[in-house]
Amino acid sequence: MIDGERLWRRLSDLGEIGRQREGGVTRLSFTDEERAAKDRVASYMDEAGLSVREDAAGNLFGRREGRNADLPSVLVGSHVDSVYNGGDFDGPLGVLGGVEVLQTMQERGVETDHPIEVVAFTDEEGARFSFGMIGSRALAGRLTSEDLAKYEDRDGVSIAEAMRTYGLDPERVGEAARPEGSVKAYVELHIEQGRVLENEGLPAGLVTGIAGPVWLRFSLEGETGHAGATPMSLRHDSLAAASEIMSLIEAEASATGTSVGTVGQLSLEPGGINIIPGHVEFSLDLRDIDQGVRDRVEGRILDEAVEICRRRGVEMGVETLQRLAPAPCSELVMDAIGRACERFGIRPHALPSGAGHDGMQLAGLCPMGMIFVRSRAGVSHSPEEWSTKKDCAAGCNVLYWTVLDLAGGG
Amino acid sequence: MIDGERLWRRLSDLGEIGRQREGGVTRLSFTDEERAAKDRVASYMDEAGLSVREDAAGNLFGRREGRNADLPSVLVGSHVDSVYNGGDFDGPLGVLGGVEVLQTMQERGVETDHPIEVVAFTDEEGARFSFGMIGSRALAGRLTSEDLAKYEDRDGVSIAEAMRTYGLDPERVGEAARPEGSVKAYVELHIEQGRVLENEGLPAGLVTGIAGPVWLRFSLEGETGHAGATPMSLRHDSLAAASEIMSLIEAEASATGTSVGTVGQLSLEPGGINIIPGHVEFSLDLRDIDQGVRDRVEGRILDEAVEICRRRGVEMGVETLQRLAPAPCSELVMDAIGRACERFGIRPHALPSGAGHDGMQLAGLCPMGMIFVRSRAGVSHSPEEWSTKKDCAAGCNVLYWTVLDLAGGG
Repeated sequence: MIDGERLWRRLSDLGEIGRQREGGVTRLSFTDEERAAKDRVASYMDEAGLSVREDAAGNLFGRREGRNADLPSVLVGSHVDSVYNGGDFDGPLGVLGGVEVLQTMQERGVETDHPIEVVAFTDEEGARFSFGMIGSRALAGRLTSEDLAKYEDRDGVSIAEAMRTYGLDPERVGEAARPEGSVKAYVELHIEQGRVLENEGLPAGLVTGIAGPVWLRFSLEGETGHAGATPMSLRHDSLAAASEIMSLIEAEASATGTSVGTVGQLSLEPGGINIIPGHVEFSLDLRDIDQGVRDRVEGRILDEAVEICRRRGVEMGVETLQRLAPAPCSELVMDAIGRACERFGIRPHALPSGAGHDGMQLAGLCPMGMIFVRSRAGVSHSPEEWSTKKDCAAGCNVLYWTVLDLAGGG
Repeated sequence: MIDGERLWRRLSDLGEIGRQREGGVTRLSFTDEERAAKDRVASYMDEAGLSVREDAAGNLFGRREGRNADLPSVLVGSHVDSVYNGGDFDGPLGVLGGVEVLQTMQERGVETDHPIEVVAFTDEEGARFSFGMIGSRALAGRLTSEDLAKYEDRDGVSIAEAMRTYGLDPERVGEAARPEGSVKAYVELHIEQGRVLENEGLPAGLVTGIAGPVWLRFSLEGETGHAGATPMSLRHDSLAAASEIMSLIEAEASATGTSVGTVGQLSLEPGGINIIPGHVEFSLDLRDIDQGVRDRVEGRILDEAVEICRRRGVEMGVETLQRLAPAPCSELVMDAIGRACERFGIRPHALPSGAGHDGMQLAGLCPMGMIFVRSRAGVSHSPEEWSTKKDCAAGCNVLYWTVLDLAGGG
């Protein structure tokens, strides 16, 4: 249906903007590279016959009218900013896929009831200010002037200052907010960034929700001792306690079938090969697309960890570093994606998004859903990030039929 | 029996030699401080009426003749060198306790069949050259000229060079070796360096053997992945594998009732809070006084670890960093210590020595045994190292009756 060659060519061409010596792309928000990428996308929107505009947050839109201009629009898109030395697909696939869908409709003279807009959101990644989803927050009316003043880049430049340099007025960012009921649905095409679809042998999949992470830091205080002179029964070994808790985390997260629990950081003291570690700190990243499930897993982990430490005579402290609400995808959009998958003979495999996306911000504004495209070895945020031309086209075709379905087309 | 006040005074006085601003003592081998400590001990030996000499390795001896000069001597002692900023008890208690025993015999006119010698061994700790038990190795005929040339201190000074500066001829170190059959038994009084006796509420205890450590380094290679986007079932998490192995180590060591297994070092990569660790390395210090038990525990740990890693799709490598044979204490000496404990109303509680001692080197030369004295909080190698005057006296009394028993006295 859609033109897979054109989509692929645009993905490659856009990837040249901000290309690094190390092989990846760096397009930080409110920089010349992001500007150039948006300009390039705007030119593709022109080619697709869309009316192009930018809002007060720098979000770039291409709009195609429907039969009824008063109906809320169907929104598709993603972002064109990147992490440092990132890949060609994370973001651009959703933006260029959206343009491709609308250009295909234009070329085939397909009409829809609802207007359709494709959007390139400003700064999803958060690489510059350690505060991402700026454009989608603004669209959802969730961005405050405090946020714009508070977060700064490595050079001490605030988001507000960067916006001014870019030609935007941070005082007017509220104008980017869309009123409730003005968006019928949001659909995003994105690479999976995991290995589920590769494992299932499927080019694309149906996202059930965007997981919300809880980040905790455990601090265990046991008793340092001589590794030779302290019998096992007299120990208060904080690493042994941590091991038991880490196994518990794995078991509790696995038991749900949907949650993921990861210990990515661990440090211990004093660190001598013949000294029982008295002090251990480790992190926990716990996610689920269902907040209730996630909170129950967290509760069980904490309850059992307290018991483990009590039994071992080890003091435990837990600090919360971050707590974001998960965003379930809407039935409306998931159903449309499922039908679109089946139309292409793709078994509609449902999977959660563990990584965050702009859709998280929009979940309160409108029905939201995502289509994932198979990602080689699950690698992302790297020059190694890769999805095949065929899979990108397959995902874009699923997007086409999903959007047509939601916009009342055909 | 023995003079606890005199023993305590000498412990305190000796502790002034090499006293640091940080509060501890530093007496490294072949330094002015070790020389001064040996000279001080020699003066106490004089007071005790012993004949004093030093051997080719710098070991200091005080000898009291028995009724039969041809009989092998009973050897008691320890060392007077220390770690950097160490305590007053680790080493000196055994040397000064030995002198106290012989001085008490002298004062009471007690005769023994066997001659008795008290020894202050050269460099037990290994703090200067990272190669300890120099004097006891020499006595056991286990010190080579390669050893003396190979090991160097921080300033690049070899043991051989340090010996020459000290007035010893490294070429003649072999002369320090005692012939087989020339020592009836070796007994050492030492602080426990653990919490067993404190826990048992006993001033002294009966050592069953000196554990031999095996030091291993595990290297686990799993798969790095996004903490949100990788379902639990598709992970090859090397830290989760390490946790399971660490729990296994604890369980297998505990199951024996005698072995101790400690993971004192652990590092992981890449170390992001939201990244599954692909690579983990950790150490294992495994000890038992019975080599067969230790080797079986090691075998079970390795077999099960291989299975854990196979099941998880994680590659495991294991490197051996050190492997020392344990030294069981002899029945002869343990029986004598047990009888001596009972004479003082001390329940003869048997416990292993997890830390290494000079007796390890002598185990091949003669029957060997040790008496432990209760150590506050198990702390050693620190200015906080502490045993009470009463416990030191109690341990010394046990030593007195043990030595009298072994030397055929009374």
